[in-house]
Amino acid sequence: MTTPFPIEAYLRSVAERVEPRLAALADARAPGGPPRLVEAMRYALLGGGKRMRPALVLAACEAHGGDASDASLAMRFAVALEAIHTYSLVHDDLPAMDDDDLRRGRPTVHKAYDEPTAVLVGDGLQSLAFAHLLASPDPAAAPLARLLAENAQLMVEGQARDMAGEHARLGEAEVMELMRTKTGALLAAAVAGGARCAGVPVEAAYPVGLKLGLAFQIADDLLDLTADAATLGKRAGKDAAAGKSTLHAVVGVEEARRRAEALLAEALAAIEPLGPRGEALRALARFVLARKK
Amino acid sequence: MTTPFPIEAYLRSVAERVEPRLAALADARAPGGPPRLVEAMRYALLGGGKRMRPALVLAACEAHGGDASDASLAMRFAVALEAIHTYSLVHDDLPAMDDDDLRRGRPTVHKAYDEPTAVLVGDGLQSLAFAHLLASPDPAAAPLARLLAENAQLMVEGQARDMAGEHARLGEAEVMELMRTKTGALLAAAVAGGARCAGVPVEAAYPVGLKLGLAFQIADDLLDLTADAATLGKRAGKDAAAGKSTLHAVVGVEEARRRAEALLAEALAAIEPLGPRGEALRALARFVLARKK
Repeated sequence: MTTPFPIEAYLRSVAERVEPRLAALADARAPGGPPRLVEAMRYALLGGGKRMRPALVLAACEAHGGDASDASLAMRFAVALEAIHTYSLVHDDLPAMDDDDLRRGRPTVHKAYDEPTAVLVGDGLQSLAFAHLLASPDPAAAPLARLLAENAQLMVEGQARDMAGEHARLGEAEVMELMRTKTGALLAAAVAGGARCAGVPVEAAYPVGLKLGLAFQIADDLLDLTADAATLGKRAGKDAAAGKSTLHAVVGVEEARRRAEALLAEALAAIEPLGPRGEALRALARFVLARKK
Repeated sequence: MTTPFPIEAYLRSVAERVEPRLAALADARAPGGPPRLVEAMRYALLGGGKRMRPALVLAACEAHGGDASDASLAMRFAVALEAIHTYSLVHDDLPAMDDDDLRRGRPTVHKAYDEPTAVLVGDGLQSLAFAHLLASPDPAAAPLARLLAENAQLMVEGQARDMAGEHARLGEAEVMELMRTKTGALLAAAVAGGARCAGVPVEAAYPVGLKLGLAFQIADDLLDLTADAATLGKRAGKDAAAGKSTLHAVVGVEEARRRAEALLAEALAAIEPLGPRGEALRALARFVLARKK
């Protein structure tokens, strides 16, 4: 019998490595930047969260035998990708978008500061993500930045689909496309970018990451259905209230869960041959479905 | 006596070369992207404008003997930079920001479409700008993308200063810092990026571009003061109405005009040695102050 992988401890250790670097992104702007904007960027970047995406970058890199140390390109990519994810949360929460007051148990940026600041925090974090990644002298930074930009665009398109899908009756194919773009794209970029840092072509690792991304979103929607706000750190049941389109609304809760499990099994099968080095990545993949928030 | 450079015709020819490429940025998303978002991106990108920034990129490249042809990296950079500029206009016009209904004589994106679409159009255009530039196989694309990202961040910081400066009494140094970041940074990046495409280090050309950028913003604020809406294609006198901080509000109209002329003279002196190849760049520099809108 094998000891279960300490996934919670792994995520904590990634967070402890990534968060000082996220803080540094904002702090580097402090000497000349407008104080309130810099403070709000810091607030957004250090708002907690599981740091799933950086963990996927680093674990995917390690799984393929690459360097995921603090000074590595993989770490730089992980930080840039988390900054992109953070910008998307800040903008998604805006009154004109999902209109959320609470995120990870704290006031959202436009609540803690104001709406113009939240717009600019999101805009700036996107720029900072690319500036940070491209500050690397490594020639592999450019293809990674391209991967990030293309998937950040898909994420925006997914968010547009999500807004359009509110109170509309999307079919199964449309819901899958929404999930592929809105959440799947950036998670797939995390896995593919991490693998790329170990020399694996993007095309090889992206499909595995996408399966994980889809499983993640299905699980997220199911959590919204069943968990309470105190556990989630955000308003529960808000998807249903907003008339959001989810897979479980189309195919039913049990079938949605079954699909997520099938996607996870396919992803696990693809990373099985990586052997012991892939242990953290496999544990992260399992965590996608097992998590309670 | 020399024939005056045909600056209006030059700008028209740049616009005719750049606009199909801006349209293609949006159109490339059409096959799979959400139709309304793609249409709104196209609307934003083809909203007219003088295309000053792409013209500065191409003219600066030519002035230093570089390739500014349609297939060049300079053209790719010009298109990416104009997409960044366009995203900033869409977000600046939002109700939470400057709350403008009119831009270049047409309804702003959130008026022609809706507010969530305008947020996402801006977010997506920023991603597309980097994706477009980094799709080049040229190794110089990465430093250009870094230049663009860093100055896009400065632009956001300038916009934050501008919002904070409304109905506040900024001093001269603060107004100059506002202009340096909000408008100057991206114009400086245009000149420096164009020159970089011809092999000139960014540090060498950036200060010249910044002088032009500052002259441009002073002139823009003066135009807002004196022109009418029909000429400008946007609400005139809105800066004063919004209590915006301008140089002429601090040092007076005549002194502001004198400063703009001095900045222009310094920029012209720096590009004088470039000889006949620099003719378009010099004409663009003069146009910055001579323009009526």
